[in-house]
Amino acid sequence: MVKYPTGSSAAFRKLNYNYQAKHQKRKHKNINFSDRGMNLEQMINESNKYYRTKEIAVVHKKPTPVQIVKVDYPKRSRAVIKEAYFRQESTTDYNGVYQGYYLDFEAKETKNKTNFPLKNFHEHQIIHLAECLKQKGICFTIIGFTSLNRYFVTPASAIIKAWWTKDKSSLTLKEVEDWSVEIKNGFQPTLPYLKAVDSFISDRKIHDDK
Amino acid sequence: MVKYPTGSSAAFRKLNYNYQAKHQKRKHKNINFSDRGMNLEQMINESNKYYRTKEIAVVHKKPTPVQIVKVDYPKRSRAVIKEAYFRQESTTDYNGVYQGYYLDFEAKETKNKTNFPLKNFHEHQIIHLAECLKQKGICFTIIGFTSLNRYFVTPASAIIKAWWTKDKSSLTLKEVEDWSVEIKNGFQPTLPYLKAVDSFISDRKIHDDK
Repeated sequence: MVKYPTGSSAAFRKLNYNYQAKHQKRKHKNINFSDRGMNLEQMINESNKYYRTKEIAVVHKKPTPVQIVKVDYPKRSRAVIKEAYFRQESTTDYNGVYQGYYLDFEAKETKNKTNFPLKNFHEHQIIHLAECLKQKGICFTIIGFTSLNRYFVTPASAIIKAWWTKDKSSLTLKEVEDWSVEIKNGFQPTLPYLKAVDSFISDRKIHDDK
Repeated sequence: MVKYPTGSSAAFRKLNYNYQAKHQKRKHKNINFSDRGMNLEQMINESNKYYRTKEIAVVHKKPTPVQIVKVDYPKRSRAVIKEAYFRQESTTDYNGVYQGYYLDFEAKETKNKTNFPLKNFHEHQIIHLAECLKQKGICFTIIGFTSLNRYFVTPASAIIKAWWTKDKSSLTLKEVEDWSVEIKNGFQPTLPYLKAVDSFISDRKIHDDK
C-alpha cells in the first residue's frame, strides 16, 4: 500500500473512489461501480465541478462520515488517524444551492435492466429527503441503469411514496420512466441534471400560481 | 485509548468533539474549546437537532473530511480504517434548508474580548461563501466571543469584504456589533440563530421589492 501523507488530491480521489466502491460493494450487490469509464458518482462530481466553475450552481458531495477512535500526533508531521470506522450517513450524499433553491439528492446505480431495487436506499435517507421536502427543498434522486446507459432524475416524492408502499421492493423501469426526467450523459457537463431541476422548478411555479 | 468498534454514538460524539478540538487547536490558538459547558459547535448541533425535531429547519454539520489510505477488512467484523489523514475542508461546516431558503454558514469562536481575528477563516471558506451568495443562498457566520458569552450572526458579505481588505487582520468587537444580529444563548434552542436568519430574509425581501 502506497502512503500519501501529503499526496496529491488527484491520487487521493482515485484511492477514495476505490475504497468507497469496495465499501459499498460489501453492502449492495446491486450497485455497479463499473470500470468502464466513469461511475455515476464520478459523473456527478465532474458535473458539479463544471457547474461551480461556470457559476451555475454550488453543489458538493458530503465527505464520507468516519468515526475516529485513535489519532497519533507524530513529531514534525501531520496527525495520523490510526483507527476509525465507517459510519452510516444521516443524510443524502449531495446538497447545494442553485438560483436560490436548496438542492438535495442521492445518486444510485444498478446493473439491473428492468427494475430499480428500493433496498438501495436506507430509511434515514428517505426520512431526510422527506424532511427537506417539507422545508421546500428541491429533492430528488439520480438513478443510473448502468447496463442500459440510461440516467433518470426522479423526484423524491415518488421514491418516498414507493418506499412506504407495502410489499413494494423495487420500481419497474416503466415506473422510473413515467415519474422521472431522463437525462443524457454528455461532455460538459457529464450529466446535465440541472435540466431536470429546471423542469421541477417550472412545475412548482405553475403549482404555486394555482 | 478505549476502542469503540461498535461504540455508542453518544460516546463517539464526545470523542469526536475532543479530536476536533485537539485538531483545531493545533491550527488556531485563538479558538477556545471551553470545558465549561458546551462549546459553540455543540450549541449549534443541539440547536439544529431542536430545529429538525420541531420541523423548523433541516441543517446538518458536514462530516470531517478524511483522506483514507489504508483499510482492513477483518473476518466477521466491520471494516477498520488503519491509516487516514485530516483533509482541509473545501466548504463551510454547516448547510441546510429553511422555508425554501438555502442556508450556509461557518461557526468560529474566540477567547479574545476586543477583536475577532480573521485568520480564523481559510480562504477556501471565504470563496465558498461568496459562491453560495451568488446563488442567492443565505450565508453567514456565527461568531462566539466566549470570554464575553456573546454570540453574533454576521452576514457573509461583511466577512468577505473584511477578508479582502488589505492590512485588515481582525474585526473589532464594535464592527461585529454593528454588522451582526446578536443572539442570546438559551435553553431550546441553545442558540436561536434562525431569529437572525429571519431578519436577513426580511431585509432581502425589502431589497428585492425595491
